[in-house]
Amino acid sequence: MTSNLPSVWLHELTWEEVASYLRTRDTILVPFGTTEQHGPAGPLGLDGYVAIALAEDAARKAGVLTAPPLWYGDSSHHLGFPGTISLRTETLMQVVYDVVRSLARHGFRRILLINGHKWTNLAALTSAARNIREFELPGVWTAVADPMYLARGIASAIKHANEHHAGELEVSHVLYKFPHTIRTGRLSDAACDFDRLLGPFGTSDLFAVGGRDTIDQPWTSSEQRSAAPTGQFSSNRAATAETGKQYHEYMVERLVEFLAWWQSHDELSTPASAKAPRREGEELP
Amino acid sequence: MTSNLPSVWLHELTWEEVASYLRTRDTILVPFGTTEQHGPAGPLGLDGYVAIALAEDAARKAGVLTAPPLWYGDSSHHLGFPGTISLRTETLMQVVYDVVRSLARHGFRRILLINGHKWTNLAALTSAARNIREFELPGVWTAVADPMYLARGIASAIKHANEHHAGELEVSHVLYKFPHTIRTGRLSDAACDFDRLLGPFGTSDLFAVGGRDTIDQPWTSSEQRSAAPTGQFSSNRAATAETGKQYHEYMVERLVEFLAWWQSHDELSTPASAKAPRREGEELP
Amino acid sequence: MTSNLPSVWLHELTWEEVASYLRTRDTILVPFGTTEQHGPAGPLGLDGYVAIALAEDAARKAGVLTAPPLWYGDSSHHLGFPGTISLRTETLMQVVYDVVRSLARHGFRRILLINGHKWTNLAALTSAARNIREFELPGVWTAVADPMYLARGIASAIKHANEHHAGELEVSHVLYKFPHTIRTGRLSDAACDFDRLLGPFGTSDLFAVGGRDTIDQPWTSSEQRSAAPTGQFSSNRAATAETGKQYHEYMVERLVEFLAWWQSHDELSTPASAKAPRREGEELP
Amino acid sequence: MTSNLPSVWLHELTWEEVASYLRTRDTILVPFGTTEQHGPAGPLGLDGYVAIALAEDAARKAGVLTAPPLWYGDSSHHLGFPGTISLRTETLMQVVYDVVRSLARHGFRRILLINGHKWTNLAALTSAARNIREFELPGVWTAVADPMYLARGIASAIKHANEHHAGELEVSHVLYKFPHTIRTGRLSDAACDFDRLLGPFGTSDLFAVGGRDTIDQPWTSSEQRSAAPTGQFSSNRAATAETGKQYHEYMVERLVEFLAWWQSHDELSTPASAKAPRREGEELP
Amino acid sequence: MTSNLPSVWLHELTWEEVASYLRTRDTILVPFGTTEQHGPAGPLGLDGYVAIALAEDAARKAGVLTAPPLWYGDSSHHLGFPGTISLRTETLMQVVYDVVRSLARHGFRRILLINGHKWTNLAALTSAARNIREFELPGVWTAVADPMYLARGIASAIKHANEHHAGELEVSHVLYKFPHTIRTGRLSDAACDFDRLLGPFGTSDLFAVGGRDTIDQPWTSSEQRSAAPTGQFSSNRAATAETGKQYHEYMVERLVEFLAWWQSHDELSTPASAKAPRREGEELP
Amino acid sequence: MTSNLPSVWLHELTWEEVASYLRTRDTILVPFGTTEQHGPAGPLGLDGYVAIALAEDAARKAGVLTAPPLWYGDSSHHLGFPGTISLRTETLMQVVYDVVRSLARHGFRRILLINGHKWTNLAALTSAARNIREFELPGVWTAVADPMYLARGIASAIKHANEHHAGELEVSHVLYKFPHTIRTGRLSDAACDFDRLLGPFGTSDLFAVGGRDTIDQPWTSSEQRSAAPTGQFSSNRAATAETGKQYHEYMVERLVEFLAWWQSHDELSTPASAKAPRREGEELP
Repeated sequence: MTSNLPSVWLHELTWEEVASYLRTRDTILVPFGTTEQHGPAGPLGLDGYVAIALAEDAARKAGVLTAPPLWYGDSSHHLGFPGTISLRTETLMQVVYDVVRSLARHGFRRILLINGHKWTNLAALTSAARNIREFELPGVWTAVADPMYLARGIASAIKHANEHHAGELEVSHVLYKFPHTIRTGRLSDAACDFDRLLGPFGTSDLFAVGGRDTIDQPWTSSEQRSAAPTGQFSSNRAATAETGKQYHEYMVERLVEFLAWWQSHDELSTPASAKAPRREGEELP
Repeated sequence: MTSNLPSVWLHELTWEEVASYLRTRDTILVPFGTTEQHGPAGPLGLDGYVAIALAEDAARKAGVLTAPPLWYGDSSHHLGFPGTISLRTETLMQVVYDVVRSLARHGFRRILLINGHKWTNLAALTSAARNIREFELPGVWTAVADPMYLARGIASAIKHANEHHAGELEVSHVLYKFPHTIRTGRLSDAACDFDRLLGPFGTSDLFAVGGRDTIDQPWTSSEQRSAAPTGQFSSNRAATAETGKQYHEYMVERLVEFLAWWQSHDELSTPASAKAPRREGEELP
Repeated sequence: MTSNLPSVWLHELTWEEVASYLRTRDTILVPFGTTEQHGPAGPLGLDGYVAIALAEDAARKAGVLTAPPLWYGDSSHHLGFPGTISLRTETLMQVVYDVVRSLARHGFRRILLINGHKWTNLAALTSAARNIREFELPGVWTAVADPMYLARGIASAIKHANEHHAGELEVSHVLYKFPHTIRTGRLSDAACDFDRLLGPFGTSDLFAVGGRDTIDQPWTSSEQRSAAPTGQFSSNRAATAETGKQYHEYMVERLVEFLAWWQSHDELSTPASAKAPRREGEELP
Repeated sequence: MTSNLPSVWLHELTWEEVASYLRTRDTILVPFGTTEQHGPAGPLGLDGYVAIALAEDAARKAGVLTAPPLWYGDSSHHLGFPGTISLRTETLMQVVYDVVRSLARHGFRRILLINGHKWTNLAALTSAARNIREFELPGVWTAVADPMYLARGIASAIKHANEHHAGELEVSHVLYKFPHTIRTGRLSDAACDFDRLLGPFGTSDLFAVGGRDTIDQPWTSSEQRSAAPTGQFSSNRAATAETGKQYHEYMVERLVEFLAWWQSHDELSTPASAKAPRREGEELP
Repeated sequence: MTSNLPSVWLHELTWEEVASYLRTRDTILVPFGTTEQHGPAGPLGLDGYVAIALAEDAARKAGVLTAPPLWYGDSSHHLGFPGTISLRTETLMQVVYDVVRSLARHGFRRILLINGHKWTNLAALTSAARNIREFELPGVWTAVADPMYLARGIASAIKHANEHHAGELEVSHVLYKFPHTIRTGRLSDAACDFDRLLGPFGTSDLFAVGGRDTIDQPWTSSEQRSAAPTGQFSSNRAATAETGKQYHEYMVERLVEFLAWWQSHDELSTPASAKAPRREGEELP
Repeated sequence: MTSNLPSVWLHELTWEEVASYLRTRDTILVPFGTTEQHGPAGPLGLDGYVAIALAEDAARKAGVLTAPPLWYGDSSHHLGFPGTISLRTETLMQVVYDVVRSLARHGFRRILLINGHKWTNLAALTSAARNIREFELPGVWTAVADPMYLARGIASAIKHANEHHAGELEVSHVLYKFPHTIRTGRLSDAACDFDRLLGPFGTSDLFAVGGRDTIDQPWTSSEQRSAAPTGQFSSNRAATAETGKQYHEYMVERLVEFLAWWQSHDELSTPASAKAPRREGEELP
């Protein structure tokens, strides 16, 4: 339990408070956002707000800590819109390696990356989370959660349109948790015509199930600006704080469920040496 | 049309034959495999055979060229099994950058990466295919095809079990096209117990649709060897060449369809300079 | 002026609001913090809070924007204390390159990095800020501000001890702006005995002027933990919000003064091409 | 002996078959080719065919395994001709490191790289083969074989002209083993005038012995295209399958001889720990 | 004592002589220079001469060895002047890592980098000297000395002007030790007008103490050439060999003092394993 | 002609002197050495002395400039002997790229790298010299000279034994030019038994002509120390200053001949843009 700590946020704690937490716990969340355009109604930091909201509430409910957010992600295809700041895939991977290495030094053994960005961050996050375990830290477990996979069980039931970048669900989510950042007067039906752009092998709904046979066709930031002049890929007109609340609570519940399972679970085989308790401050080999 | 060329394989042609092709065409396929264990029945090169089979037949039917295959991919989680050879994610990304850069020099403008490996290659392939366009070659189009997404429309109809690594569909596929590489006497029901290993947030079928809320939990090669001691993740007992034929032909048809659409299509906006025809041998800026 | 925008923080704005800002302005601040131990009284995020406080208030007073903060920095020597998360120098340089490149795409031409961390971040920040100009973006101006250099004119007048890591001034600063993060009951006289550790060539006051002949002797995280078991390098017992207010206001005033001078100034010679106005969204060469 | 295995090619075997091989053997070959122009008569994949032919036949005769071929190499100076695909030197080095690391994990201790490309691949292959031993895997032996050095004892006796890129010997070699890839109607005397191009310090015969004092003068792909408009550097008019057979068999015999010596030999001092038998699947330190 | 060795320069010794030194000593100096313009009177190699002079005389007096000099440094902002050769920051860091790793292999445990360049080399040298200890070689001590910090105690007393690039002190230094490289007829009062260029937050004296609140504003090589058309930043008209002698002897004395302290000192805590004597030639872990 | 300049060494000149040289010339030499053991008689810096001697005398005779030497090279296989300092291959390549880029900025168009080290430096030097031309600077010519190839015409005539590392010729060379660095009392017949170590495919004479079929077998530094306990690979007992003089003068003559040819030669086709004269100080594209 973190109930005796003044905050779930690592950066609000002193090192002694973290040391105290590590005497009984070994789990931490790390929220990953972006700074990328989210259309006329959504703030550039939308993905960061999503990751922060999920991390904070899941941490509180599960009694675990969360590291401070990374506001920058892999958003190169949004660079055609003013304000977007993108890390290259390679840079983001290095950041993940460094963060996991640092946390492992202190004895954190369950590190859950929470991605607010969907698609393009995932290549870096999942690769890095896998590679660091295989090549450096087999005794540390990593996992990556993302709304696109985490909310499958509720998305279709609560949304009114296909959900894509700056769509109804993610806008509702931030409208619920950080209402001052949504320009509700700018919600609209603006959307990409994916069929025209990507032909019969594109997808227009990140939560589409079963659906089409697809082939990945990456576009550049300048193509994207032509294709989606407002920056919005799917309608968010129906966005409401209430929808955001349902969506948020569903995902937080899933995360808490996962953390409970993860922390009680020791099935994956790890080398004996990795299982030995690591003392606080001890050097890694 | 490549009908006047002696082969669809670039490495079987002379440069003059390629130059002749480039006078009217600008499309090429690039097959990506791996060298990784595929259980007691499947060869280490299975993913390469998949990519080769798809690339060769799609190239023939669409009248386009295919580059020679890359037999090495991102397979680190299989390194616990003898014979697996893995490139790091970062290395594979560099290979993709170099291959695309080289092809772009000659005037290839539509480059379709065909991944035989599913999951773990995709992070490198899709990131690299996107980054090279954004940062270096906006006038070159890239795309990435993978059975996991390409065969959604048929997989459920023809398979008898959940499909995962070394499962019924991919083994059937190679049994159909390269029968000498499958040890049919070793087909079996061996499978991972994903629920036990990954809890309620794992997935046991790469073609599962809708299905569960999932969280990515990468495992190490030594955990994998414990979890799947034969190397096989799902049953392939029902594998037949006939199933492989249906699966293969469905995917080839999809690829040919995509290539037809892609080559007739000029919707994505590209900078004017990139649209200017590039003369054979001309230096890139 | 940003007076018509709802926030100085880029991530709270939409891209259209940023586009509107860029029609008349080209300046942005970027705050760099760390997640590193700051003794028994200071939070792990102290450097981030410093950078955020300076960036936010300077941005408001100068009517300019600020990018979201980077909470992770080059803190490897603090890794002996639980909770510290460090980027390698090389990773931090890549982050700076990517952030500056992204901002330059949109027409930002004056980019002021605000470092809350002092010493060890500076190698990465100043090198990267210099290299990106020389080798890629000569038409974009960068600058780096740090309390250690920015507050020379006031530090000696308001502090009661030598100022070093987790010392009176930086703790006062955060006590003034983010009081809930300081454990005032843990303020103390704990300090390193620099003379014993580093001999006659060390320095015990980051604001020392003139002072000693010095030689840089980097220590490891485990040496540091021995040398400063509480994590605090100099006394912060005298820390007060009032001292923090004076320190903060002095630095904000300096930053505003600098920004006024910088924005009115066109003295440094830049290539003619770089001076041509870049249109919003336009591709960089 | 591999006589009980269905193939010498690793990618045609299952992991269990490789495990069985590793119980008594620790040697593997790795063929490195390129995809680069070889004049009007030779296929782009010529170097790969050379490496494959040597690896396959040497493996069969010596009873050892061979990894699948790498079809891409360091061919930047051929990029002026359509179809050439080049890896940068740095990328190729990383591929070698990854391949050797992977093989070492399984207990392969003698890894012979077979280069079909001559010159420019060698910098990457020999450096990487050396570095990986020194810095990571002292207990694994690597070696690099190349026709240019391997066939010194026969080249002069069987060729009719100076031998250089796309010359009589390498074309004969592939004509013997993969006749469908040579356009015999396009064999010719086309050749570079090396003296005019490189002055008195160039070399026009890769097998020249004693010969001239030389200075390396790298040329770019566009210079090369001017200098050798057909892509051929020396006459291949006299190429015959018979010459290819002699050349091939000589080199295979040399490789088999070397492998026999190498496998019986334990002279080079290796650290005791490296000599300890590594169990299949065991983690490297 | 090195008194029985024929030279303090490592490259003038045989490996047996170095082995003999290492039986009782573990200290070495490494001089870092640059090849960068130093105005009309100073040679391009000035910084190297400074580092060589300090290293050689300090080594002699302290009875320790010095490695050969690196003549290339991080000088990108001087690239506007013919003859300047610059390493990128990242390259220089890699050189430092490699040099320290090599020396550590032999049992050198105190490695003092002597920087003749001031500012811009320091980011690479201090970062690399710190990182290599933290992440690879905790048992090896590194330190970095630079005239800018080493000569604080004498600079103001002996110079007649503000001291900056190519100024009175560094020119005097080289005039004293390598007189043939200074064009005394070209000494002059040429200087940058820093106030005009950098506004109220620049600094015009590298030895300024207390002085101004400053903000780092990196300039490009082309801006620098405009700002300082002769390449000289401050007056060197008063340069004399006598001033150089005082400056040099003061710094050598400081270095010798530091070396004496460093070698007698064992205060910083290092892991026990690192303290175990390393036998000559022994492999590092 | 450099006859009006006070030195052929770039680092002894002012930038104005270099600018004056560049008004009529565009050639420069760059000497590459190593710091690696050369047996009981040769200094660690032997390769640097070789490169310096050749560069200085060739520059004088040809009236061209030489950059300062790099004393560090790719010597990892010598790290078993105290005093050896090695750069990794990748680091050395980066140094070459940076040096060539810098020189190209000033208008140097003919850059001759002079390698004193033989074998292992060559992979990095020749690759980097080739890559920088192809990918960045097609208008700049690079070349690489090495005694092993440059002295073929004389070596056999003047040496008394097979020539290898620390052998008669290179020791004679340095004995002639830098006699104080050779311990003549330690000249000996110590030699590796290459046949025992490398079997029938090794080579024991770097100048061997025609000779054997060879296969490259890299060894580690610890294997090398076992194989050649004195560090010397071939007899240098017969070394004399007179032999060194003949060897040196032969190579200098060859270099001067090459430079004369190179500077009068414009045969290699370069893009028109590259041929445009670059003005001193002008920015590269």
